[in-house]
Amino acid sequence: MQTRFLLDQAEIPSAWYNALPDLPEPLQPPLHPGTREPAGPDDLAPLFPGALIEQEMATAPWIDVPGEVLDILRLWRPTPLVRARRLEEALGTPARIYYKDESVSPAGSHKPNTAVAQAYYNAREGVTRLTTETGAGQWGSSLAFACAQYGLECKVYMVRASFEQKPYRRVLMETWGAEVVPSPVDDPSHPGSLGSAISDAVRDAATRTDTHYSLGSVLNHVLLHQTVIGLEAKEQLARAGEVRPDVVVGSCGGGSNLGGIALPFLTDPAVRLLAVEPASCPTLTKGAFEYDFGDTAETTPLLPMYTLGHDFVPPSIHAGGLRYHGDAPIISLLVKAGRMDAVAYPQGKTFEAAVQFARCEGKVPAPETGHAIRAVIDEALAAKESGEERVILFNYSGHGLLDLAAYDDFNHGRLVDA
Amino acid sequence: MQTRFLLDQAEIPSAWYNALPDLPEPLQPPLHPGTREPAGPDDLAPLFPGALIEQEMATAPWIDVPGEVLDILRLWRPTPLVRARRLEEALGTPARIYYKDESVSPAGSHKPNTAVAQAYYNAREGVTRLTTETGAGQWGSSLAFACAQYGLECKVYMVRASFEQKPYRRVLMETWGAEVVPSPVDDPSHPGSLGSAISDAVRDAATRTDTHYSLGSVLNHVLLHQTVIGLEAKEQLARAGEVRPDVVVGSCGGGSNLGGIALPFLTDPAVRLLAVEPASCPTLTKGAFEYDFGDTAETTPLLPMYTLGHDFVPPSIHAGGLRYHGDAPIISLLVKAGRMDAVAYPQGKTFEAAVQFARCEGKVPAPETGHAIRAVIDEALAAKESGEERVILFNYSGHGLLDLAAYDDFNHGRLVDA
Repeated sequence: MQTRFLLDQAEIPSAWYNALPDLPEPLQPPLHPGTREPAGPDDLAPLFPGALIEQEMATAPWIDVPGEVLDILRLWRPTPLVRARRLEEALGTPARIYYKDESVSPAGSHKPNTAVAQAYYNAREGVTRLTTETGAGQWGSSLAFACAQYGLECKVYMVRASFEQKPYRRVLMETWGAEVVPSPVDDPSHPGSLGSAISDAVRDAATRTDTHYSLGSVLNHVLLHQTVIGLEAKEQLARAGEVRPDVVVGSCGGGSNLGGIALPFLTDPAVRLLAVEPASCPTLTKGAFEYDFGDTAETTPLLPMYTLGHDFVPPSIHAGGLRYHGDAPIISLLVKAGRMDAVAYPQGKTFEAAVQFARCEGKVPAPETGHAIRAVIDEALAAKESGEERVILFNYSGHGLLDLAAYDDFNHGRLVDA
Repeated sequence: MQTRFLLDQAEIPSAWYNALPDLPEPLQPPLHPGTREPAGPDDLAPLFPGALIEQEMATAPWIDVPGEVLDILRLWRPTPLVRARRLEEALGTPARIYYKDESVSPAGSHKPNTAVAQAYYNAREGVTRLTTETGAGQWGSSLAFACAQYGLECKVYMVRASFEQKPYRRVLMETWGAEVVPSPVDDPSHPGSLGSAISDAVRDAATRTDTHYSLGSVLNHVLLHQTVIGLEAKEQLARAGEVRPDVVVGSCGGGSNLGGIALPFLTDPAVRLLAVEPASCPTLTKGAFEYDFGDTAETTPLLPMYTLGHDFVPPSIHAGGLRYHGDAPIISLLVKAGRMDAVAYPQGKTFEAAVQFARCEGKVPAPETGHAIRAVIDEALAAKESGEERVILFNYSGHGLLDLAAYDDFNHGRLVDA
């Protein structure tokens, strides 16, 4: 009985799907943080290479993936599509549950899909050094890996509290050759925040001509690079004999793993799209749709998005990747337009789901991925209740092997159910 | 340019390869620890199910893999065979380097291949509970995963020093539902050893009728279950257009990952087999070939093997899986007969190789796997020196994501070069 659906290496998508022309309404432009006028390519040039700025505003429906990017993606792509039969049996559901396994990348999540593309375009335009910020380190480790592939220097500003308390992804970054420093750099007594780390990384890039800055989520070009996930999954579902998924599920922090799996299904109105977020950082379910800054220091352009306010500080839940005050403009627009649904869960229920998944399917999910699994299980139980066959597709965005302390808290009843 | 060679799920080997009939000379039997007479099936029955005792002494060249075992192996098998082209380029070698990626299993190593089979046979014979010992936790986590699949209780006696200092694999075991206790159970002030943990696990199993004991390496049936690795690799190499590997490389602790990849090539005299061990625990390169106990407490049968003495205590190198005083009788016999070569490296050189691999190929290897990679790189450099095309196959036995503290030591010059 087949449960894993694989593609040949030659079947990695050769073009990314650009959702911008297919959105229900045009995306509002970013605004310059000083003038509050629409920001143009020149405003972004100190931080990003021309190719990425073009992609940020592209109108073409498909954008070719460069061969040099495919050469690296091929180290782990195409990723498997897996039918979670043992989970289906445990739930007693008539639903068929499929997951796209992005945890098999070198860094253990979907993040390298865009890190590789960003490193490549920067290297091609003569940049020799990239800076970025990272919280627990998922994004920083992905960029460190990508920079190693193109011979770029990489400097990562890591939130000081994580730098000191969660050393393992720092070690990963250093093993791939990156320099990692705690942020804020100018105040060794401060525990730091993603906001301060962005400020450090942007300042570094803005003041050196050999250096650009790299962002791991939210922006249009990041979601674009992640569409390889959904494009592969679509082909794999067809080989599994499915016409379409009834619902596509992804956890949502900034929106890149969700966008990656969901956007390629955007134009099929029979496919429901579902965002899953933490109840403690409920941007899509309780935020306001308005222009807001990407960082606390108000240095980035303002983006049109659901936001809890750029000074909102979410509780320190284990799903660090979902602790962001806003959402990608593309995701925000889809929710506002009613094309995408959103649901929020407290973390206790997501760990329950993650442990059930681990015992059935073997793999231990990242806490972020546990949010998607919670919603998938509830969808599958609803299908059982109503007796419907239903095809559920979700993004298994990352593994939890560097998050085992969180499982220890859950297993021993110490998890704070924020 | 293809670098990953995949098999369909239906191509998981349906039979294990039994090397016993093809050995250069008959294997000497185990001896009873009390009488020192050859141990028979009845001597092993309190600890192992009949099916495994039969496999331990089987004469048939092939043994069918039960469908219920294939159902679980299918969660991650067949594993990929990968050509390490970027490593080849970095070395400037004419050699073609292939690795069999066993790190993709739920527990992150090759160990579940036998854990699943052992749990199945025990469950089929009515056993409801398994005990085992574990050091850092690779084996214990694999058995915990396997027991979860067949509804068996699992109790793991974990070396106390690891239990206290390396909690992550304990968390994995608990997440899969196992009970984990520090060993020795009767002396909370003792740091423990693999020897004492074996004694605890065997004593538990021997005194309860519902319970058996499970061992993760050394024994013939364990190596048998691991032959899926080499059988798949053989088929995948053929699809890559290779007639045969010139050399097959594996790290060697007890010998199960090495046996798994090497034994299916045993009968082809053109294939060189190479064991790689730590210089600090040089069983094959400096040990004596003689009958010795498997544990320090002298409770197990005596096995004919290369050994440093059952009271030998190796330095606490990071490759915990290679810290064993003896070797599998099958591996020992092959080395003694000249059919297999062995080489030893100090751990500093293995981490150099592991980091080079990580930067080229993305994946961060387990310290054990780093030993194989060191030898592979040296083989590839020798091929460069002599200008020979050479096909090198090695077993990528596990990932290093739960061993990052060791990389931190290496990256910052703190690694003791034992």
